[in-house]
Amino acid sequence: MRRFIVIGHKAATAADFKLDDLAGGAGRLDILLRCINSAFFLSHDLRKDVEVILVLLGPPGPVRTVRLVGSELRYLNPDERSTGALIRNALMKDTRSEERSTPGIYVSSRTFQDVLGLLGETELVYLKEDGEDIRSAEVSDNVTFVLSDHMDLTPDEESLLLQYRPKVLKLGPISYHADHCITIVHNELDRR
Amino acid sequence: MRRFIVIGHKAATAADFKLDDLAGGAGRLDILLRCINSAFFLSHDLRKDVEVILVLLGPPGPVRTVRLVGSELRYLNPDERSTGALIRNALMKDTRSEERSTPGIYVSSRTFQDVLGLLGETELVYLKEDGEDIRSAEVSDNVTFVLSDHMDLTPDEESLLLQYRPKVLKLGPISYHADHCITIVHNELDRR
Repeated sequence: MRRFIVIGHKAATAADFKLDDLAGGAGRLDILLRCINSAFFLSHDLRKDVEVILVLLGPPGPVRTVRLVGSELRYLNPDERSTGALIRNALMKDTRSEERSTPGIYVSSRTFQDVLGLLGETELVYLKEDGEDIRSAEVSDNVTFVLSDHMDLTPDEESLLLQYRPKVLKLGPISYHADHCITIVHNELDRR
Repeated sequence: MRRFIVIGHKAATAADFKLDDLAGGAGRLDILLRCINSAFFLSHDLRKDVEVILVLLGPPGPVRTVRLVGSELRYLNPDERSTGALIRNALMKDTRSEERSTPGIYVSSRTFQDVLGLLGETELVYLKEDGEDIRSAEVSDNVTFVLSDHMDLTPDEESLLLQYRPKVLKLGPISYHADHCITIVHNELDRR
């Protein structure tokens, strides 16, 4: 299982945003939607053994977490708008504990701390520019990568994550968008 | 210079499509828009030394070609919808020879054959599942990659391309979406 946790620092936590304004009014939700695309889509196939957890921290709050499970997903298309509609559907559910919104998509009010605490057996990887090169690193088959949207992790988020002693890895000499990072990670692990 | 030619076999050649329907009515233009994103965007930066050439072959015809030049681009945002609007603007220009539509975006009625003929000095690479692994291949700094949308190159397109004796390279053991291919290519070349 490859799992990707992506923090959306400004991403909408209510379903009142417009699908025409995913980059603006929805708080850069467009980035998270492209992360979903990169995590699941292969040419003419969907990756089943992948999970994506989006932690949405934008207004109006409180935090909402959307979890997508590759083995159960249906109705997922590669484009931003239709995926945005699925996330908006999920946000319509006003629930604290995790509930299913559509096949393979679950919503809750779990915090980043909750999400980390609930991971169970998995290797944890923090993708960061000053890490070890992923190409020379051992990576478990059961691995969880932590990424951020257009902003870095806050000092609080980072210190929380570091308590779990993640492996710190980098993907190359340049800093990439989160969705591009997911594509590069997949390619590296597909080769092993 | 890294250049990416992407063939959109069904992609709209007129500006009458809706930005709400980029994956449907615009003939999978969403794929080409994500290719633009992958080609140009870095975290908080734009790649200047990149060019993208989209060859649009869908209805109503005839062919339209849109060329994006990294060193001149402005007003480019990462999301599909706003990039779709730029391409739609370009398609509003009814021109045979190449004309600028917005900064860094040019439109013409060049065919794939025209595009190949006009490349000048560049190494040509055909990304294909049965090629040599890119990680062990020499690749020039001045290189042009040819990709296709959700469909393979037609036999005619492939035989045209092969006349130019491209290097045939693969990116791994699995077949990826065109935009993911561009991300993987960039990462590999960024490392050299």
